[in-house]
Amino acid sequence: MSRNIQVKLAKRPVGLPDESIWNIESNDIPVLNEGEILIKNEYISLDPAMRGWLNDMRSYIPPVQIGEVMRAGSVGQVIASKNEHFKEGTYLYGTGGVQQYTVTNGKGWIGVEPKLAPLPMYLGTLGMPGFTAYFGLLDVGKPQTGDTVLVSGAAGAVGSIVGQIARIKGCRVVGIAGGPAKCKYIVDELGFDAAIDYKNDDIRQKLKEYCPKGIDVYFDNVGGDILDHALARLAMHARVVICGAISQYNNTSVPRGPSNYLSLLVNRATMQGFVVFDYSKKYGEAAKEMAGWLKDGRLKSKEHIDVGIENFHSTFLKLFSGEKMGKLVLKVSE
Amino acid sequence: MSRNIQVKLAKRPVGLPDESIWNIESNDIPVLNEGEILIKNEYISLDPAMRGWLNDMRSYIPPVQIGEVMRAGSVGQVIASKNEHFKEGTYLYGTGGVQQYTVTNGKGWIGVEPKLAPLPMYLGTLGMPGFTAYFGLLDVGKPQTGDTVLVSGAAGAVGSIVGQIARIKGCRVVGIAGGPAKCKYIVDELGFDAAIDYKNDDIRQKLKEYCPKGIDVYFDNVGGDILDHALARLAMHARVVICGAISQYNNTSVPRGPSNYLSLLVNRATMQGFVVFDYSKKYGEAAKEMAGWLKDGRLKSKEHIDVGIENFHSTFLKLFSGEKMGKLVLKVSE
Repeated sequence: MSRNIQVKLAKRPVGLPDESIWNIESNDIPVLNEGEILIKNEYISLDPAMRGWLNDMRSYIPPVQIGEVMRAGSVGQVIASKNEHFKEGTYLYGTGGVQQYTVTNGKGWIGVEPKLAPLPMYLGTLGMPGFTAYFGLLDVGKPQTGDTVLVSGAAGAVGSIVGQIARIKGCRVVGIAGGPAKCKYIVDELGFDAAIDYKNDDIRQKLKEYCPKGIDVYFDNVGGDILDHALARLAMHARVVICGAISQYNNTSVPRGPSNYLSLLVNRATMQGFVVFDYSKKYGEAAKEMAGWLKDGRLKSKEHIDVGIENFHSTFLKLFSGEKMGKLVLKVSE
Repeated sequence: MSRNIQVKLAKRPVGLPDESIWNIESNDIPVLNEGEILIKNEYISLDPAMRGWLNDMRSYIPPVQIGEVMRAGSVGQVIASKNEHFKEGTYLYGTGGVQQYTVTNGKGWIGVEPKLAPLPMYLGTLGMPGFTAYFGLLDVGKPQTGDTVLVSGAAGAVGSIVGQIARIKGCRVVGIAGGPAKCKYIVDELGFDAAIDYKNDDIRQKLKEYCPKGIDVYFDNVGGDILDHALARLAMHARVVICGAISQYNNTSVPRGPSNYLSLLVNRATMQGFVVFDYSKKYGEAAKEMAGWLKDGRLKSKEHIDVGIENFHSTFLKLFSGEKMGKLVLKVSE
């Protein structure tokens, strides 16, 4: 059997990670013990949250430790099994890590069906990012028909789904994304009502133009300046959903707090954080509804697929540079 | 009849207001038209919100215009009436402004009874600050028995009532105040479980000590550093009530945003603003319940009373210097 290439955390990054924080190792695949299975990972998920897992801080999940395989979601095939619950040949989603093969007792892994959807989609729209969009928007943001919904990171794995679900729910949807291509994509392909290019537009002016009655729901993936602009334009009783803050994750100083937070007072508004794991019992429900929308064409899914586990670092950097559209995925090998 | 001394806004302040922003004028009292009443103001309310009304900005209430009498709550006696709904000799609460006499058609004024409570209390515990504490804590903060409630500005008109109501509701209550005298007062006199002196204590360390299980409700009157410390110590599903941000009101630069706002995400917490006016239909209900608590000794009310309308500016500055305890009130004349 071939060897297992693994990407391990060599040291903690300061600011934007460089390649020296990883060790790429080639190791033997352990012999399976009773109850274990061997998964050949086919696709690895790249998510902004990974940057947080590199910091030695108390958070919603423990940090990745130095010397550990980098944590990542993956989909793969069971190629050997000493566990009666998992059959060889089936496909699973789980936290497989950045490695070619994962040995596990199967806890936390769930079956996925490549005949129903392409495997990478189980890491995106039919996986964590999709669930994050679904529950964050519907349960925390509580959009009502006719509301104006603003979403940042709007061409990304989460933001693109947030905007489309908001459209399905009868909202006016404005997306913020970087560059003309992404802006064109979310309006022309995904049906957003308007797009703001944060790299080229006057965000304040465009928000005024596209959200004339104010913002009822702001789904924030980015933090920083854009969060402040959105706060300045809230409608009464607005809901601000804090999903992430990718503009701040590589800061070496204290994160930038939203200066305009007193807009919450003036507008009797709410800012609320959430973590998708809390909804795990309802993932099935969300997957079923989103699969229906995918089938009838109301929901579109896009994946950016890089190839080769040895390219993990350069793919990882695309989370921050924005050089990708939709869900970022690494195909483990050709 | 005597003349009417009025304090008008002469110009907009930059930073901490100095005396030059006011014009003190002595004017004739206008002759009453049909439907109008003349109120002799006895006590004028001083509130942190006044600083916001001086800025030319869109907010929950229009700014005071240059040349207008400074807006302020007041209690006074009807000394002449051409309105059948208001009898001479009765006492009213309303937005009388910083002046000795107010002429009004009576809209927005409500009767108060000096036999039931001292007049200044209708500007504090039985007035806006009391209602702010009552609805902000109970309706927005939603404290549950056994919760840890933290309140800043804890020796002030709002904070002191927030802490006492939280105690009545069976919460563990920690107050943040400036200086040993205020800290001693809220613990010894008001029954808070603990006090943190933000001028002398290590806030982070004390929060760890006094809120070992985290903060379930944080009622914020101050913003700035203290808000950040509180965010860093939230319990899961915590509620942060944004009532004010007195530490930021005299800033000449952009207000300081809460750097630790991503704690809302990690802890699935909510930060929500409110404005007491939205509860106006329920003021009677709150006044009745708080009057009961005052009567049975579970709620204590304190007023700091300065004297003389000509001293308005120096009294106003005490809102920011903290040289007062409880509700700040100006007695119009001896």
